[in-house]
Amino acid sequence: MSETRARGRRRGSPDTRALILDAARERFAAGGFAGTTIRAVAQQAGVDPALVHHYFGTKDELFVASLALPVDPRVVLAERLAVLPDGGGEPDDPAGGPGGRMLRAILSVWDDPELQPGLVAAVRRFLEPGGEELVRSGFVPVVLVPLGELLGVEEPERRMPLVATQVFGLVIGRYLVGLDPVAGMPADEVVATFAPTLDRYLVGDLP
Amino acid sequence: MSETRARGRRRGSPDTRALILDAARERFAAGGFAGTTIRAVAQQAGVDPALVHHYFGTKDELFVASLALPVDPRVVLAERLAVLPDGGGEPDDPAGGPGGRMLRAILSVWDDPELQPGLVAAVRRFLEPGGEELVRSGFVPVVLVPLGELLGVEEPERRMPLVATQVFGLVIGRYLVGLDPVAGMPADEVVATFAPTLDRYLVGDLP
Repeated sequence: MSETRARGRRRGSPDTRALILDAARERFAAGGFAGTTIRAVAQQAGVDPALVHHYFGTKDELFVASLALPVDPRVVLAERLAVLPDGGGEPDDPAGGPGGRMLRAILSVWDDPELQPGLVAAVRRFLEPGGEELVRSGFVPVVLVPLGELLGVEEPERRMPLVATQVFGLVIGRYLVGLDPVAGMPADEVVATFAPTLDRYLVGDLP
Repeated sequence: MSETRARGRRRGSPDTRALILDAARERFAAGGFAGTTIRAVAQQAGVDPALVHHYFGTKDELFVASLALPVDPRVVLAERLAVLPDGGGEPDDPAGGPGGRMLRAILSVWDDPELQPGLVAAVRRFLEPGGEELVRSGFVPVVLVPLGELLGVEEPERRMPLVATQVFGLVIGRYLVGLDPVAGMPADEVVATFAPTLDRYLVGDLP
């Protein structure tokens, strides 16, 4: 019976998980999120599609795992947001609104030296030729818009991409290209500097 | 002898230099800096790789040359700023301040189909590993800070990098990754959406 198994498709093992992730990265990079199926990933990995579902659940979850992010941004940001004060009692504090809370959660992840290299690598992949499809059909609906819903943002499809432009530029300046003074600012100063911008995109008046 | 020459690969001439630069701009825009070889540029231009080295030296120098030809950002932005109304008479127009003027100038350059490929290639080069040096020792002192001085910004070394984070993120969303709704917005809506952010970084209160 083990002989039969050995001749058939691979069964679950620690290596199988890595094999599926490698296949997913190649398929998503080549075909984008929308153009990639669980079945195609399974075929490339030489495993049964049921095994992909067993390890990773939905295509959304497989995509997040394939980004090789050191963390699932939806989970970590939800956790960090949950323990942050919402600043609601201090209306004069420019960093006390939703933008300040989001920025503190983002910085607490990005400033973590264990997580930063994987996040930098993920951003670089988004920005390579071909990465636009991963952003548009993967990152936006799977990470960005759900994060807005988590924060209770109205019209998240409209407002969260505005947030993303400022956060992407901040992250690139601070962590990828070392743009001073943004790169060297203490986290509190980053939050105070950029929170009013995010507040306007998240809850303010827009044209 | 001229017959032999005519049958072989093209030899040096003023046109050859332009031909190589055209090919370089296309290759860098399509494949990024790391994904482009001197050999591929030479092949596209129909010349010998040695001729590319003869005219431009290293790949870095070819890249810089390929950027310099389509647009010197300081010259082009100065020209476009000079012909734009400063909006000083309409204090209620959120796009009438310095941020709105700067955005209109930037969009008029980036939305120009002749200039866009070279600009996209430049941004990709900035974001690749190793590009940080090009940003810190090239873009910031040569383009960013002088542009702030041109606009009469106080403390340009402090304020212009904040502007750069938002403009970088906007440019990446609009031109590199096609992030909706930013990618599809009419220029006027982009200006109205982002001008208040730039006004605060350029002339507003900061922490």
